[in-house]
Amino acid sequence: MKNCVIAQSGGPTAVINASVMGVVAKNRVLKYYDKVFAGLNGIEGILAGNLLDLTPLTDEEVDTIRYTPAAALGSCRYKLKSAEESPKEYEQLFKVLEDHEIDTLFYAGGNDSMDTVAKLGRYAAEHGKKAKFFGIPKTIDNDLPVMDHTPGFGSAAKLIATTVLENYLDASVYSKPSAFIVEAMGRDTGWLAASATLARIDGKPVADLIYLPEEVFDTKQFLIDAKEILKKQLHLFIVVSEGIRNSEGVFLSELGTQGQKDIFGHVQLGGVGNYIKQLLLDGGVVSKARALEISTTQRCGMHVASQTDLSEAYAIGETVMAYSIDGESGHMGGIKRISNEPYSWEPFTLPADQVANRIKYFPKEWVNSGRNGVTDEAYRYFLPLIQGDPEYKRDHGMPRYVQLSDLLKKD
Amino acid sequence: MKNCVIAQSGGPTAVINASVMGVVAKNRVLKYYDKVFAGLNGIEGILAGNLLDLTPLTDEEVDTIRYTPAAALGSCRYKLKSAEESPKEYEQLFKVLEDHEIDTLFYAGGNDSMDTVAKLGRYAAEHGKKAKFFGIPKTIDNDLPVMDHTPGFGSAAKLIATTVLENYLDASVYSKPSAFIVEAMGRDTGWLAASATLARIDGKPVADLIYLPEEVFDTKQFLIDAKEILKKQLHLFIVVSEGIRNSEGVFLSELGTQGQKDIFGHVQLGGVGNYIKQLLLDGGVVSKARALEISTTQRCGMHVASQTDLSEAYAIGETVMAYSIDGESGHMGGIKRISNEPYSWEPFTLPADQVANRIKYFPKEWVNSGRNGVTDEAYRYFLPLIQGDPEYKRDHGMPRYVQLSDLLKKD
Repeated sequence: MKNCVIAQSGGPTAVINASVMGVVAKNRVLKYYDKVFAGLNGIEGILAGNLLDLTPLTDEEVDTIRYTPAAALGSCRYKLKSAEESPKEYEQLFKVLEDHEIDTLFYAGGNDSMDTVAKLGRYAAEHGKKAKFFGIPKTIDNDLPVMDHTPGFGSAAKLIATTVLENYLDASVYSKPSAFIVEAMGRDTGWLAASATLARIDGKPVADLIYLPEEVFDTKQFLIDAKEILKKQLHLFIVVSEGIRNSEGVFLSELGTQGQKDIFGHVQLGGVGNYIKQLLLDGGVVSKARALEISTTQRCGMHVASQTDLSEAYAIGETVMAYSIDGESGHMGGIKRISNEPYSWEPFTLPADQVANRIKYFPKEWVNSGRNGVTDEAYRYFLPLIQGDPEYKRDHGMPRYVQLSDLLKKD
Repeated sequence: MKNCVIAQSGGPTAVINASVMGVVAKNRVLKYYDKVFAGLNGIEGILAGNLLDLTPLTDEEVDTIRYTPAAALGSCRYKLKSAEESPKEYEQLFKVLEDHEIDTLFYAGGNDSMDTVAKLGRYAAEHGKKAKFFGIPKTIDNDLPVMDHTPGFGSAAKLIATTVLENYLDASVYSKPSAFIVEAMGRDTGWLAASATLARIDGKPVADLIYLPEEVFDTKQFLIDAKEILKKQLHLFIVVSEGIRNSEGVFLSELGTQGQKDIFGHVQLGGVGNYIKQLLLDGGVVSKARALEISTTQRCGMHVASQTDLSEAYAIGETVMAYSIDGESGHMGGIKRISNEPYSWEPFTLPADQVANRIKYFPKEWVNSGRNGVTDEAYRYFLPLIQGDPEYKRDHGMPRYVQLSDLLKKD
């Protein structure tokens, strides 16, 4: 027997299941692995021996999971320590793999997950283990270095831009001056908030001001800019990243409330939209303001996902599966943009440690001179990534999604 | 010259523009009115003489506005007083109509707007004015009596159900027990929150608990029910109306914060989702919980609107326009359901004062015995209303929406 296991880590996306099903489908063509297991709830589940054989899934079911958002195999927020710090964990993991005759582990995730892939690859090489480890990139944040963009980003960008466009129209119906603030995710980077520039009417972006974590948020300048805009128009539309900070490096969201840290030591954010709203009210800029936090909807919105993103995510899964046969352990898949008009791309592979724990920031040169918006070059970068209506299945007017627990019983 | 004017009032919907364009398009066929004016920002704008001639719009532009969400003609929250209280306003309104040779005013809105239609119809009859007044129903709340449902509701229901379904999957990915709370609009009635029952996987509703304003919210029973569910499953999913109240009749959203009243004297709500979240945390039911307020997105989400709703809204606009030629002033359009499977409906007309200031509540008999969910009969009522993908136009992966200010200059 020669088996493999796939697992997912970190926050869900609309297309992570497409990548996983790309691995499953490609193996059905190449017939390389005897069994494809799911590792439920990421590395944490694999350590606990929580595996599920995906072999009984019909091709029809594989195709339905492909178009189901979030993480069908479950997820975790578990970061593997170094082998020196936690040797028993490594021993346990390899024992589970050997018990199930698993040669290959595929791990879909972001910077932290690629750290896990790199660590496990190194450990296996150093300890003469034959198991190999491969990464599949996944994050709505688009913050993985080396590659052009990440699977998951295009769909999140499309949901954000669509939400911005429709709420702009909603926010413009009354004759009283007002402000509307949309809060997008993005703790460290502004890719998601910046994608609001895709929301345009008659070619003109509807967001008047866009603020990214890469730039220091200057409250005084913000209030000046907001007042200036409201001299020329009735309504002000603002998009902010959850991670914007002031000149002291303090998250705006923390200035109003107490910040809580997640298990990676990252500060848990939320509420910066309301903070900006209060600034406008307290600053006398406007007497009516509303804040909208798109929240988790932006990472699971299959109903308005990008088919380009879905297709790329699937193809990356296929690519990494095929690469795993003779490829080098500790590597991962990536996306290279070949041309913009017409858009074309190709998959490539790279060592996961080039991505592990590193962040690709939104380019300084794509921020406008007022430091409150993005350039047309950014727009041209985003545009190809949101193309195509998602080909999810429908049942009686609703999307048809499935859960593994309904399709399979535990091994 | 024989002209008409159309205006909109109250909160936007995804399909209000479809109704307005139904009037415009039908007049292009019947060629009854010489000019169709828009009254910008509702009655408030008409009083100010703020009219825009829609005649120059091309058929292509009419069709694009039809599939643009929110209120293309602007809106207001202005409730006309009685003629006894505010005679000058009535005189001013009729002067504007006469100045523009307007025979007919069409007003699209909810209970309050139908009150305006009824009042103006009575005033004209009593004062020998020839102008006639007609109502077009519009509200996501689905709370207008006499008719089966309201244009705008089906699209909002579809957005809510889709959001619930996708966030349910998102909220189920981790192996730690958790609760997720979705807050839907609905100050007085629970139609919107109840429509979450449309979100199903494998035929089973994903929402474990649904709370409506029609039922008293019993905190103790809620905590018991929540604990009971979490004995059997890892994740708890709750949907609440913004307007749920405790046994003293106090809005839950007010228990945490200070309530503000809107200009109709209605209490401005928000934040009940967070209140429920805190109840669960404080009650020790679960240690991880998240609340999502869908907010204004649920009333402007054309990208996931119901084509059935869009078609009905358009047809009601056409019907009321045709009716206005020989019909009785002070009347409005409505929707009658003829059969459920297959779904069929027909438009009808009724006196606006049968609807004015009256509320259609969610039926008691459609609430389950635990008073924390809805029955299958409710599901069968909702289902036909969300059918069909919306046929909005696309431009480079984004919806193509327009604004009147870009298409026309003011008269």
